[in-house]
Amino acid sequence: MTLRIGVIGAGMIGQDHIRRISTVLSGGAVVAVTDVDRSRAAAAAGKVSARVFDDTEALIAADEVDAVLIASWGPAHEAAIIPALAAGKPIFCEKPLATTQDACRRILDAEIRAGRRLIQVGFMRRYDAAYRALKATVDSGAIGAPLLFHSVHRNASVPKDLYTSDMAVSDTMVHDIDVARWLLDDEVARVRVLAGKRNSVGGDLRDPIFAVMEMQGGALATVEVSVNIGYGYDIRGEISGERGAASLAESNPIVVKTEAGFAGRVPADWRERFIAAYDAEIAEWIAAATAGGATGPSAWDGYAITVVADAALQAAGSGEAVAADLGRRPAFYDA
Amino acid sequence: MTLRIGVIGAGMIGQDHIRRISTVLSGGAVVAVTDVDRSRAAAAAGKVSARVFDDTEALIAADEVDAVLIASWGPAHEAAIIPALAAGKPIFCEKPLATTQDACRRILDAEIRAGRRLIQVGFMRRYDAAYRALKATVDSGAIGAPLLFHSVHRNASVPKDLYTSDMAVSDTMVHDIDVARWLLDDEVARVRVLAGKRNSVGGDLRDPIFAVMEMQGGALATVEVSVNIGYGYDIRGEISGERGAASLAESNPIVVKTEAGFAGRVPADWRERFIAAYDAEIAEWIAAATAGGATGPSAWDGYAITVVADAALQAAGSGEAVAADLGRRPAFYDA
Amino acid sequence: MTLRIGVIGAGMIGQDHIRRISTVLSGGAVVAVTDVDRSRAAAAAGKVSARVFDDTEALIAADEVDAVLIASWGPAHEAAIIPALAAGKPIFCEKPLATTQDACRRILDAEIRAGRRLIQVGFMRRYDAAYRALKATVDSGAIGAPLLFHSVHRNASVPKDLYTSDMAVSDTMVHDIDVARWLLDDEVARVRVLAGKRNSVGGDLRDPIFAVMEMQGGALATVEVSVNIGYGYDIRGEISGERGAASLAESNPIVVKTEAGFAGRVPADWRERFIAAYDAEIAEWIAAATAGGATGPSAWDGYAITVVADAALQAAGSGEAVAADLGRRPAFYDA
Amino acid sequence: MTLRIGVIGAGMIGQDHIRRISTVLSGGAVVAVTDVDRSRAAAAAGKVSARVFDDTEALIAADEVDAVLIASWGPAHEAAIIPALAAGKPIFCEKPLATTQDACRRILDAEIRAGRRLIQVGFMRRYDAAYRALKATVDSGAIGAPLLFHSVHRNASVPKDLYTSDMAVSDTMVHDIDVARWLLDDEVARVRVLAGKRNSVGGDLRDPIFAVMEMQGGALATVEVSVNIGYGYDIRGEISGERGAASLAESNPIVVKTEAGFAGRVPADWRERFIAAYDAEIAEWIAAATAGGATGPSAWDGYAITVVADAALQAAGSGEAVAADLGRRPAFYDA
Repeated sequence: MTLRIGVIGAGMIGQDHIRRISTVLSGGAVVAVTDVDRSRAAAAAGKVSARVFDDTEALIAADEVDAVLIASWGPAHEAAIIPALAAGKPIFCEKPLATTQDACRRILDAEIRAGRRLIQVGFMRRYDAAYRALKATVDSGAIGAPLLFHSVHRNASVPKDLYTSDMAVSDTMVHDIDVARWLLDDEVARVRVLAGKRNSVGGDLRDPIFAVMEMQGGALATVEVSVNIGYGYDIRGEISGERGAASLAESNPIVVKTEAGFAGRVPADWRERFIAAYDAEIAEWIAAATAGGATGPSAWDGYAITVVADAALQAAGSGEAVAADLGRRPAFYDA
Repeated sequence: MTLRIGVIGAGMIGQDHIRRISTVLSGGAVVAVTDVDRSRAAAAAGKVSARVFDDTEALIAADEVDAVLIASWGPAHEAAIIPALAAGKPIFCEKPLATTQDACRRILDAEIRAGRRLIQVGFMRRYDAAYRALKATVDSGAIGAPLLFHSVHRNASVPKDLYTSDMAVSDTMVHDIDVARWLLDDEVARVRVLAGKRNSVGGDLRDPIFAVMEMQGGALATVEVSVNIGYGYDIRGEISGERGAASLAESNPIVVKTEAGFAGRVPADWRERFIAAYDAEIAEWIAAATAGGATGPSAWDGYAITVVADAALQAAGSGEAVAADLGRRPAFYDA
Repeated sequence: MTLRIGVIGAGMIGQDHIRRISTVLSGGAVVAVTDVDRSRAAAAAGKVSARVFDDTEALIAADEVDAVLIASWGPAHEAAIIPALAAGKPIFCEKPLATTQDACRRILDAEIRAGRRLIQVGFMRRYDAAYRALKATVDSGAIGAPLLFHSVHRNASVPKDLYTSDMAVSDTMVHDIDVARWLLDDEVARVRVLAGKRNSVGGDLRDPIFAVMEMQGGALATVEVSVNIGYGYDIRGEISGERGAASLAESNPIVVKTEAGFAGRVPADWRERFIAAYDAEIAEWIAAATAGGATGPSAWDGYAITVVADAALQAAGSGEAVAADLGRRPAFYDA
Repeated sequence: MTLRIGVIGAGMIGQDHIRRISTVLSGGAVVAVTDVDRSRAAAAAGKVSARVFDDTEALIAADEVDAVLIASWGPAHEAAIIPALAAGKPIFCEKPLATTQDACRRILDAEIRAGRRLIQVGFMRRYDAAYRALKATVDSGAIGAPLLFHSVHRNASVPKDLYTSDMAVSDTMVHDIDVARWLLDDEVARVRVLAGKRNSVGGDLRDPIFAVMEMQGGALATVEVSVNIGYGYDIRGEISGERGAASLAESNPIVVKTEAGFAGRVPADWRERFIAAYDAEIAEWIAAATAGGATGPSAWDGYAITVVADAALQAAGSGEAVAADLGRRPAFYDA
């Protein structure tokens, strides 16, 4: 049985998921594509013999579409998710779930009304082998109760014209917020964001930033975000617990010794670092959607991350601790 | 377009490839299965709605079979390969290509008669990300001309009743012979095998062994094979060249610190260590077979490895250097 | 020429320095010892045929004493330093320089009056090979201007009856304050200290703590202090700069592979981790003192660390940023 | 009590030991120096106010000389050792013990006549922290009985005019022979030496070479010697046993990440790699000599290494296994 997938948004990430579903993974087929740019939709659909839709709602409603993958820009997510939920069709939605807390809450309400989890949000780190090993180690009790998580998120560079200071939180740090919540199995209570000496490479960009999140249970999660560090895409993380610590290892497959000493590769970008995680993410989504449901990061996760990111953006201005008011998690989202 | 695959041999490795083709990779479907044990074939075929054949030749001849995957035991390979070549159907054949040099030569002749490469032999290390990075580094010239390759091949344990001293060469060291030839881009001229103090865990088993291969171009390749070392499946390799060296890094995704110090995981077995390599191997085969041909380790490679393994087995008895007489490589197999 | 050293304080650390000077290093001899506990002084002096003094000032004044090493408890430091400065004798003083900012300032004044640097304070990390390589890398410009320093300071355990929450700052974190100032070549402007979920091993102890220091030049220095983590004494540090990053490597000399995976040793305690640094520290002091002066961490460093530690202690209570008001550094202490 | 040392041979290594004894270590003083080049002796002696002797025997006989350190060239060692043994004075002798097996045997006889161990031979690796940890791990039984030892000995370069092919064995590989015997606690029974493709950097030099030593107890020890590899001085070693393996870790103190990836330092030469081992070696000699005896590598070790090196040189010509006939070890040398 093949899951027939309709893809909403045929930009870079949408095209990549189409390639993945069509030429890498089993179990799914892209049968429909839509995009605000019709010619882009047609080009992407043509490669995989999918039908082009001019209209998102029509794609969602189409009988030949079993499930939808949303890769449009963030402000358009809600308008795709709500009808898909109403149609009872499983949804993979790239991050963010939505760009406002209100939109996120409307999505939560709609999914609860739908009566079962239908949404998986695209926080792919949870599918990375190293993060999974870290999570398994924490959950095993091997290091005792986790007390501190330190996350380092470095990009070689960001595009000067497009990347704003707020994006260091809303686009970049959201991944660290996700894994902090997941690894510590807890919600963020409040957050501080400090911005010190700026990296002159980025001009006026507030970079690096350092965030300190206090979790509801008291553990601390700290994040370094550096987006113009030049040398590569470097994702580090360490948890220290009551009786031990666990950290992500370097990801280099080989060691090379030349006159420069011994050396290992740092990934160039997130594609190189997380390509296997993206594959696993979509493979698991196909399996869950084929069974009519969803797995992995939920709409609640998407909402909570948005709330924390909003608090972090406010904190970045004030310099002081800002509370992340999530309200109460509906029992629907209990694991 | 889906490659319709007939599987010959539904034992452990055959079943694993059926699972891989059906539930992991895109582009292929298992449509036919045969096995000397009909009930085993039926069980495997049933999971993927494939047709069961009682007869290998009938499976190969079937119109609905585009390509064949051979996972039967070694002595049966020739009898499957020859008719598949005659039928012009692409072949993936698990190692060994065949169990005798004569059989291998008959296969080479048949493939040459077929007029194009149709056979890919299952030496999966060439698809491992770390070995590929090693190969790329050597080929880049970063370490100068390669002079020495040291390979370490350790198994946690082997089954006491089934594993014989010869299998340390014919089953285990063949992988090291393969990567030595591939990394050094050269053929083995002669080989010595030393067996020192025995690991008492294995009783009478000749273990460990240490092989020294002299390549035709003069480089040396040395191999430690230890098959009852207890602690895990540990595959190491280093090449030293005229101006540098390159080695496989540890494969652990995380580092854990507890009262035992800091620690990283060693894979438990070859499945854990090479699962991604197996996936890549079959994915590339499906792509090549869909295009009507073959890629990766060739029948010539399968033949050469068999010749070297035979020399190594003879050497293991005599303790002295034994020549590996390959004869001349047909131009057909030039890259 | 042998530097004749008078040792003030013959407790554990004083005895260790006596052993070091007498049996490890060249160039110095312990000729005099004093301690509030006369029998302890006598025992230590006896091993190296040194004279026992009942009185600190008499020891300092003795003709046969060229230089003094102060290893008494902190509150007694000032009373030993002031007369030694007056006598123009080189001084090695274990940390802290003194226990109050006022005392530190009186020492600065006295040293300035003495007309040349005579004091070296015992912050030994600056003599560790790994920290020195880190400092050299930053100073070389290889990673660009330093922007963030993250320091991790973990103890396996601390004595339950003796170790108080404040000591996590005044005894433990002072080393991280020292290296942050030294590596970043800057002073701390203000500091926050967060205390999250407590390690239940330590009972009521405020542990771990996480400090964020903002340097005058804008760089950030963050510190994790965990003093009951069980697994060992683990000192980590990483600097990220505008174009790269540099971090302390693991210190294990070998890798061992057993059924637990691969493993490396974490030092048991500060003696094991920093023994070579202590040797180098005293060797360099003997050389500088023989030449009549001092090198390494200065009285100003000792003062500044005390001011920052006081601010951190105040911050630990309030949770908010507390300024470290150093006043202006006398030109006397310019490098 | 200070050990008064007479130094025989004031070349590079002799001068370095004089510096070490005088300015680094405690417990010893250089009081006498001799050298075939009198001006060189005078220059070295002048720095430490030692007396210059024109004659080796006179230096040995001098009352003010408690012990002798021999750093002359190999062929002169016997003529210094024999009278020192006769005088009952403790001896540190740089490797080799002597340049012929006959000379070594005469030395053994003379030491046995002297009635107690007086000779320590300068194989410094046994004093390196990493090798010591390796030895301790083997001796602890953590990896079971040792079965294989693989040693890698790489030099960045050797002087083209001075370094001959035989020196790869007699000067370089002797250290690997030493640690193989020590780590495996066994003697070499026979040795093969293979020379494959030459490193073109060294012209006609037989480089690299690969040696396989069979120990009397059956374990194997293999050695790669590469002396013009360009990138640094790289000493690797791994022992695999019945239940595990242990290897030397990288020695880099820090990790640096720049656009070249992550990198660690490889030592430039043996001075950098083993400086602490040389210090420990002489410190332990001073302690043992002060007590009137010797410790560490014995004259027997020096003899055995010479015999194995001679066999290896013979093997390098023939390509076949050559026996190392040690004869029986005198009970005098039992540990």
